[in-house]
Order: sequence, then structure tokens, then C-alpha cells
Amino acid sequence: MASHLAALDNDRIRRFLAEKNSSEPILVVDSEIVRDNYAKIAHALPDTRVFYAVKANPAPEILSLLAELGSCFDCASVVEIDMALATGAGPERISFGNTIKKERDVAAAYARGVRLFAVDCREEVEKVARQAPGSRVFCRILADGAGAEWPLSRKFGCVPEMAVGVLEHAHRLGLTAYGVSFHVGSQQNNVGAWDSALASASQIFRDCAERGITLSMVNLGGGFPTRYLKDIPAVEAYGEAIFEGLRAHFGNRIPETIIEPGRGMVGNAGVIEAEVVLVSKKSEAADELRWVYLDIGKFGGLAETMDEAIRYPIRTARDGDAMSPCVLAGPTCDSADVMYEKAPYALPVSLEIGDKVLIEATGAYTTTYAAVAFNGFAPLASVVI
Amino acid sequence: MASHLAALDNDRIRRFLAEKNSSEPILVVDSEIVRDNYAKIAHALPDTRVFYAVKANPAPEILSLLAELGSCFDCASVVEIDMALATGAGPERISFGNTIKKERDVAAAYARGVRLFAVDCREEVEKVARQAPGSRVFCRILADGAGAEWPLSRKFGCVPEMAVGVLEHAHRLGLTAYGVSFHVGSQQNNVGAWDSALASASQIFRDCAERGITLSMVNLGGGFPTRYLKDIPAVEAYGEAIFEGLRAHFGNRIPETIIEPGRGMVGNAGVIEAEVVLVSKKSEAADELRWVYLDIGKFGGLAETMDEAIRYPIRTARDGDAMSPCVLAGPTCDSADVMYEKAPYALPVSLEIGDKVLIEATGAYTTTYAAVAFNGFAPLASVVI
Repeated sequence: MASHLAALDNDRIRRFLAEKNSSEPILVVDSEIVRDNYAKIAHALPDTRVFYAVKANPAPEILSLLAELGSCFDCASVVEIDMALATGAGPERISFGNTIKKERDVAAAYARGVRLFAVDCREEVEKVARQAPGSRVFCRILADGAGAEWPLSRKFGCVPEMAVGVLEHAHRLGLTAYGVSFHVGSQQNNVGAWDSALASASQIFRDCAERGITLSMVNLGGGFPTRYLKDIPAVEAYGEAIFEGLRAHFGNRIPETIIEPGRGMVGNAGVIEAEVVLVSKKSEAADELRWVYLDIGKFGGLAETMDEAIRYPIRTARDGDAMSPCVLAGPTCDSADVMYEKAPYALPVSLEIGDKVLIEATGAYTTTYAAVAFNGFAPLASVVI
Repeated sequence: MASHLAALDNDRIRRFLAEKNSSEPILVVDSEIVRDNYAKIAHALPDTRVFYAVKANPAPEILSLLAELGSCFDCASVVEIDMALATGAGPERISFGNTIKKERDVAAAYARGVRLFAVDCREEVEKVARQAPGSRVFCRILADGAGAEWPLSRKFGCVPEMAVGVLEHAHRLGLTAYGVSFHVGSQQNNVGAWDSALASASQIFRDCAERGITLSMVNLGGGFPTRYLKDIPAVEAYGEAIFEGLRAHFGNRIPETIIEPGRGMVGNAGVIEAEVVLVSKKSEAADELRWVYLDIGKFGGLAETMDEAIRYPIRTARDGDAMSPCVLAGPTCDSADVMYEKAPYALPVSLEIGDKVLIEATGAYTTTYAAVAFNGFAPLASVVI
């Protein structure tokens, strides 16, 4: 029988998996691809500082590699700050990018030397002013997220009109009103998505200037996609579109910029090897859809299949055979643990119980999303090579 | 300031939380309530064996208590089987209830003495026949789940017409075709929901009898609800309705029955204490909705708020004050981590950052659903008292 590994382009991951012969699902991340992604992003946006979104994949090897390459870190919690600091990177390379922070966590970050904080309301500004005096804050504004595949809610950010008041409040409380941030939505396929947010940002710069406050930074957020099933624009196209937006809205007074790639940095660097546990049908009817059950599902690391948002490429040893649509589900006793059903997924008709499959582009938002022990299944194993 | 704990009816949990003074979210489960639930369920269905659905909450103290009370265990994986065996319960008290099993896991269960397996297709029957010869199998059939609050998909079970062939296949392969199982949907509020499934089961009994196969067991599944915000029928009403259904469809040849309560056994025994991290608005508009952010959310244990399915009762120290609707969200940097937004949740207008809140009826499907480390946040802490 052909090996599923023959379907894999990546030699390093192929060799590792062949040798490992894992009996449980495992994510393998190729550090060379992460290195390459960093270089491409840095090259596409040469004047922009890169803050890697640690939450996308906090594996220590990835953080250390990125620290060595010069990356800064966007952290969501004190634990993530400690992980970033453990690489040897100094606290000046860390942004506490979560707009929802316990006041004691602001204090803990400040004690570690962190001086850059995200806010989106006056209440959060006050926490930072009390616990991290003199720090820089940037205010997150709402962006519409059109064109993004992973749903953006209104959870983070305020309307642009409110941001001026928030930054003014920070200024009055002795903080440095540093700039504006936004997020155009994760897995953003529209390179023009940054334009309207940049227009809002430049308006906030002008409104603050009228109040005597000079902002200096625009945080462009993340959103850079990973190639799943559909082609995506090249990183260069994003860089060009963003630069054009900056020129259009800030003229010759282009601010300092930072970006926070997560998925775009590690997504395509990872492959999950999993196993087919069952292939069956629900009735004897000739046109009945097959159900394919893997040993990984929504609660084992593929949480981003929620609402069938992210469709991962799946390779098998039988990819040359005839294909037919099937419902793809996970191994737990939870009826919500179904990945693709509304839009069934085409897999080889010859796929069998016990076959291994490769789920590609799974380097981001998989390991840490895994449930700690649902149904007794261990969280997703992970290796960086 | 009034304590949030004053809002809590349960003295034991109140005393524990007051003494513990936890700075992170914590689930406290009162074992006395679990004991009481077991007694009520056993009393309502006196001729039915209880198989506790371990996945609902596998805390060792809960499993040991239930083992001592005489409960059997419905297990989803080999890890759960080992947890059940660790209580001292023998393997004859275990059902491997997952219809999606790796063949090597069937073998591992058999090696531990387990002789009762769920199946819903011929392929799964064949795994059991090869690895667990002579065992009892029951075939799960699809039930419609109308009236259930937690969505039931078609993931488990086959149509009733197919079940006869599956059980006949088991019989031919030397297994004991033992019976039929179904699940009417978790958090099932309609006591009549079992009736149509029992009608299907009795038809399968008759069809198998015509083929010379005598089935003897009906597994009534779970579905018994926990009281969240709305009142639910008493356990006795479920017992009566099920008994009536059995009498109506099986006449005076009522089969052996088992039930698999999970939520109904532990849901109302648990309370999560959490903290308000931020209360803010997205704009200065007078009618703008408040957003309330807790230090627990969809990825920290409240996964069942997915699609706003389960609405937990939330108590605060300010419950006598005026209430107003708000969007309720978790602490992670993930825009999907919003619990109630389409149907906003009424909370006191006076609620403040730093307030503690009590999320009731959270004993089931919380701890094990928690993400292992998303955003660096630790999984939900849990204590059984």
C-alpha cells in the first residue's frame, strides 16, 4: 500500500513522521518554514516591526527561533509574556496586546518590564495608569473584517470616534498615547482590507493632534492568511497594499508601524498526522453520504472548524483514486464534534479504517485550542523540527 | 460591599469558596448533590441500571462516590475505562459506549475485562468481533432529538431499519446481539421524547426475533436535564414517561434497561466562581450595549455556550440592583470567545470590574472541555467537596 507520506511535499516532516510512526495524532512544525515566513514578512514590510502573535502557537522552539530572528511578541496573558521572556528577548520587545486584562496582570507585566499595552476603553486605560505608570498605550478600534474567513466579532475595539477620548484620557493620566490598532480579521484574503481602517486611524491621529496629543504608531494587527484549500495573495501584495494605504492616508508623515502575524507566520509550517477510525453510513440507501471519523476533531485541536470556518487540506495515500463527498467528524462522544457536514468534504472512495491522513496548514491555532482531556483523549501532541 | 457568596444557596460551596479566596476561575462540585441525584435517578427508574457518562465530569472523587453507590460507567475511551476501574469497580460495570473506536482500543478494553460495546455499523461490529470475541454489543439508532437544548447531530447511530442488519451481523460473527441504544438529545426538556425511540427499539426487537435473534436490552441513553435558567421536569416525570413508553411498546415483555445520565447526575452539583475583568462599551452612544468580560469563556470551560446553546444562571453580589442586558464574553484574544450576544444577558447595572460572579449548574461538561493552554490561560481548576 502507498504511504500517505508520499503525498507530502515537505521532506523534513515526511522523514520525521516516517521515523516517529506515531499512534496518536501529532502536529509537526517545520522551523525552516517559520524562518522563511519571517523573512518574507519582514521583507514585504521592511519598515514595520513584527510582533508575533504568541497565541497562534507558543511552542518554545518557535518563540526562540523568532526571538533570534529579531521578532517582537504580541502576548495575550502573563503566561505568554513569561514564555516570550524565556527566549531571552527583553521586555521592550513585548506588547501586552489583550484589551481585557486583570489589573493585577497589568501590574505583573509592568514588573517584568513591559511598557506597551493595548486598550479599547477608559476603564482599561485606568488600570494601566494605576499599575503601569508612564507606559505606552494604543487604542484598538473596530474594523469590519469583511473578507476574513475566521469570524470577527465586535469583541475588541471601540468605534473610531470613541478612540480619541480614550487616548486623551490616557494622556491626561500620564500615559503615552502611542497610537491606534485594529484587526482586519484572521485569514483575511482581501489585500485592500487595511485601507478603510487606515483611513480611520489617520483621522484619529488628526483629532488627537488638534487636542495637542501626538500619536506615533499604527498597529496593523494580523490577518495575513495561510494557504488552506484556496490560493491566497502573496505576502508582497499585502505589503504593497498596506504601504499604499499608509501613503494615501498619512501622506509623507507615515507613522511607525507594527504588525502581529500569527497564522501567517506558522500556519503553513505545520502538518497534523491523524488516523481514520471509522468509515460508515447511516443507512443502506445507495445515495447515503459516507461518514469519516478521524482520531482528531473539534476538541482535539481542530477548533477552527467551528461553523466550518477553516477548511484544511487533507491528504491521504489514496489521493489518485475516485473521490466522493463525506461528512468529516472527530472521535469524541459529542455530537457537536463534526467538522464538515453542511459542506461535505471530498475524500477518496477507497479510504479505509486505519488509514493515516495528513491535515495540512495546521501550524496555527491547533495545539493550544485542544481540550485538556475531553472524553479522556489527551491534548494534541506537537513537535517542532 | 455585599459578597457574591450571599447569593449562593449551597452552604458547603459557599464556605469553601469563602475560605479558598481563589484568584482564578474555579469549579466547586458538591458531592452531596451528586449523591442525591444518584438516589433520585435510581428511585425514578428502579429497574434500570445506571451507567454514569464519565465524560460529563471524570473527577476521581465523583467516580469513586458513584462506584460506591453502585453506579456503572459509560466510557468514551480507554483512558475513561481506566479511570472507572481505578475506583475499584469491576469491568462488568463498564460500557465502552463510543461508537467510534480504534480497533486497538477495543482490544485494550477487552484486555481489561470490558465485555459491553456500542456499535452503529457493520464495520464497528467487525472490530469488536476480532478484538473482543463473544462480547455483548448494542446498536445505536438515530433519534430526532427534538426538545433538546444541546444540539444533536446525526453523528452517532444508524436508521432503525439498518440496525437489524448490524445486529444480525454481530450475531453471525459470534457476538451477543444484546440490544438497542439511542439518545434523545442532551438537556432534553420533553419527557415524551423517549416514546418514539422506544417504538423504534421495539420494532427492532421484533425484527431480530423473526431472524431468531433475541435482544434483551434497551439503553435509554442520557438527556436528563440540569436546571439552568428555566424550570425542568422532575426526574420522576422522566421515569414515569419512560416506563409508560416501555409498557406501550414492549407490553408485558419489558426488556432490561440501562440509562447513561451525565449532565443530570453532576450538572447542578457544580458552581464556577469567576471574576469580572472588564465592563465597557464600544461607543459613547446612550443606548450602546455594555460588554462584560469574565476571566472564563468558551475556551476556559464554558464551551457549551457555543451557539449560545446553554444559558447558565449567573449570580452576583448586586442581584437586587436594576438589571440591564449586556454582551457576555471571555478573556481570550479570540473574537469567537463571546458567550451571549445574539440574546444578551441581563446583569446588574452596578456590576463592576473585579466583582466575583457565580456561574451555576456548571458541574457537567466544563472542566474537560477547557482548552489546555489557549492564550496561556490555564485549564479550569476544579475541586470536589
